[in-house]
Amino acid sequence: MISKNRIKFLKSLSVKKFRQKEQKFLVEGRKIIQDGIESNFFCEELFYVPNSDFEQIITTASKKSVKLTEITEIEAKQISETENTQGIFALFHFSKTNILWGTNFVIALENISDPGNLGTILRTADWFGVKEILISSDSVDVFNPKVIRSAMGSIFHLKIKISDDFYNEIEILKKMGFLIYLADLKGEDYSLPKFKHGKRAVIFCNEANGASNKIKEISQQKITIPKKGSAESLNVAVSSGIILSELIDL
Amino acid sequence: MISKNRIKFLKSLSVKKFRQKEQKFLVEGRKIIQDGIESNFFCEELFYVPNSDFEQIITTASKKSVKLTEITEIEAKQISETENTQGIFALFHFSKTNILWGTNFVIALENISDPGNLGTILRTADWFGVKEILISSDSVDVFNPKVIRSAMGSIFHLKIKISDDFYNEIEILKKMGFLIYLADLKGEDYSLPKFKHGKRAVIFCNEANGASNKIKEISQQKITIPKKGSAESLNVAVSSGIILSELIDL
Repeated sequence: MISKNRIKFLKSLSVKKFRQKEQKFLVEGRKIIQDGIESNFFCEELFYVPNSDFEQIITTASKKSVKLTEITEIEAKQISETENTQGIFALFHFSKTNILWGTNFVIALENISDPGNLGTILRTADWFGVKEILISSDSVDVFNPKVIRSAMGSIFHLKIKISDDFYNEIEILKKMGFLIYLADLKGEDYSLPKFKHGKRAVIFCNEANGASNKIKEISQQKITIPKKGSAESLNVAVSSGIILSELIDL
Repeated sequence: MISKNRIKFLKSLSVKKFRQKEQKFLVEGRKIIQDGIESNFFCEELFYVPNSDFEQIITTASKKSVKLTEITEIEAKQISETENTQGIFALFHFSKTNILWGTNFVIALENISDPGNLGTILRTADWFGVKEILISSDSVDVFNPKVIRSAMGSIFHLKIKISDDFYNEIEILKKMGFLIYLADLKGEDYSLPKFKHGKRAVIFCNEANGASNKIKEISQQKITIPKKGSAESLNVAVSSGIILSELIDL
């Protein structure tokens, strides 16, 4: 059992303003929480409806001194963002990750607006072993519950820098020797061998409007996925997957 | 102005049962309707709030003898499935497409449940020039408004066969000389040169459960996208994009 005020607090974290005020976010679902508890993120409290499926997660959590709180099924339904809740939630603190851009492949995202797209891009990046991601602060919030759901735990595997000064960060990458690629509808074929080596940052942009003029200026090479059929464009998460699959050389 | 009953009828088409009874579906948005009117689908009626943006579409529609009906902004809001409607809708009839499996590359989808995923797969297939698609009838309905939205007009470019007898259709493809690939978490690297030639059908399966046992039996070659990082799996629309980008040889 938890208090009505506590439920209200947990639910308030579905709104960005409250997450930022508290510097905390709520995660729902067994697999994602397992990933979170095993990561470097600090987990403050685990809320769960007693269920044998959660034994492993409770063991891990108690080893890490996470506060354990049993809740009722009715409370779980009140807290949940989904229609069929598993009945398990975890409260995490924001983490100040120190990104050094120490790998040779970085993804940068400008103004990605759809939470499903952002989550899917993070999941895809994580599949291909990308470690470091730069996101402009006008993109949808990484800790939005829909982003966390579609990223399926990958937010806990990646180092993510959300920047108010996105263009300056790109300039810093450039000074560090990264070649700045821009995924665009017009450009050179992304699969050319010359694009596959060295330190590279690939920028993916807003779903409806594409790259801002500023990003078009700053980037050094436009790359594109050649069209062979009739669709007007590709979904940005699909594009990022195709480009990563070809350019990653870990 | 249209009657309340007509609005009720149009709204009922957001439900599969009513679409199937009427053999009609409703499409919203200028670009998608433009694609639809230029396709082989029969457009019965165009509903629009008078607006200079719609001039081209109205011209095309009247050339094709589509019934034109002006509506008010309030009516548009009542009909719309979206928060910010453009104020244009078109009523199309289902089309009996005769698929001959006449190309050398077919996509087959088993039990795809998420409308955004199905729409994105269709859009991606259309980008890469795939013409013919087989979909098991337990997948989400192709004429679901969310599928149409995420496909962004591509349902009008593709020949789609929705089959109650999916396994038999796969067997027919096999007899026609198609090699049956199954995209799976375990299999041979999809990018091997031997997978890039000849007549091929690639099957993508349910998001949560993967391939059914039956499909595992029927398929002749499992292919996979090698994992280099930590994510548990890839989104099915992303996987299909990556595999298409590599295997298409149009």
